[in-house]
Amino acid sequence: MQVIVPFDGETPKTRLDPVLDRRERRQFARTMLEDVLGAIRSAGGSPLVLSTTSLDIPETPVCVDDRDLSVAVNAQLRAGPGEVAVVMADLPLVTAATLERLFEREGDVVIAYGIGGGTNALVSRHPAFRVDYHEGSYHDHLANAREVDAEVSVVDSYRLSHDIDEPNDLVDVLLYGDGAAATWLRQHGFSVSSDTGRSTIQRPDPQKVD
Amino acid sequence: MQVIVPFDGETPKTRLDPVLDRRERRQFARTMLEDVLGAIRSAGGSPLVLSTTSLDIPETPVCVDDRDLSVAVNAQLRAGPGEVAVVMADLPLVTAATLERLFEREGDVVIAYGIGGGTNALVSRHPAFRVDYHEGSYHDHLANAREVDAEVSVVDSYRLSHDIDEPNDLVDVLLYGDGAAATWLRQHGFSVSSDTGRSTIQRPDPQKVD
Repeated sequence: MQVIVPFDGETPKTRLDPVLDRRERRQFARTMLEDVLGAIRSAGGSPLVLSTTSLDIPETPVCVDDRDLSVAVNAQLRAGPGEVAVVMADLPLVTAATLERLFEREGDVVIAYGIGGGTNALVSRHPAFRVDYHEGSYHDHLANAREVDAEVSVVDSYRLSHDIDEPNDLVDVLLYGDGAAATWLRQHGFSVSSDTGRSTIQRPDPQKVD
Repeated sequence: MQVIVPFDGETPKTRLDPVLDRRERRQFARTMLEDVLGAIRSAGGSPLVLSTTSLDIPETPVCVDDRDLSVAVNAQLRAGPGEVAVVMADLPLVTAATLERLFEREGDVVIAYGIGGGTNALVSRHPAFRVDYHEGSYHDHLANAREVDAEVSVVDSYRLSHDIDEPNDLVDVLLYGDGAAATWLRQHGFSVSSDTGRSTIQRPDPQKVD
């Protein structure tokens, strides 16, 4: 399956600013992308990175499109084959097994729950389905699918639900991740603190420069 | 399948204190319990509420045990049939379909990922497996299972991962829930705000009294 992976090559993950400087955010975003691309390939998918800036990724096609995310993804949906997946680049917990569940689920449109109401991953097999990414886009995507009479399925996956936007999202990467992103965090001093009721992230000496 | 549902009947959900007073926390905890019990029954399970205080729940056996959570659950595991599930009472997003996936998954011990490293739901089919609930208990439960040579499976479910401890956890109940807990929140003035990068909870007039 062709799998579009949108990626902000310029200023990714700005909400991680409290714990990562600009250069670190770019590095970390690349490690998450690496994890996602690896999982896609292991699940038998063919990734196509849809980046806002030019980007060199070994053995991976990159399409540069600096338009709004939804406009760029919809252009790909229009041009793509009859079956296309869109998987966000900030899902470092995804595994091949997770994506196989997504890819194999029947339905004209298959959507995975995202924490906070977003749409982290979907499959479209309907020529008229279009995306509109924003907060709470999950419910709007369900509505969009119904509007074009597409049959919708929903995938219930923790690993697909957990996108990385804010510092505390990193906790679960350390707890459940074993890929490039988890390794990068450990190498950069992050660990899990369990002093309060729920685990939190800590970094003794952030050395933020930006 | 027998399904143990631990419940704190006295001071549940203290970390929701910023948005709910004590009486409201008790009410809300009961609505979440109601949702969980309904999903268990719809999935063909037989719930047994394991409460710290006496509690009247229609047509549901309640066992009162005010000892430490792990001690109380382990007593049930020892006394129970060869196959027992433990599902936390603060999972208002669980559905029958989610629990069917949990119950049907093969393995001597089946564990669902919990956000922040906890263990929100498990199935034990191994006589020597014991629980030890605490933050980050997921990894310790995996280790416990391996110690007694139990074969472990893991269930990847967003709906089982999302337990309700802190105010922002309520966002997803409003977004994805359609049971008693979501209804209770709406009736008590909660709604989803989408002003920032991620949806947050808001309540115009909390009228907290405690």
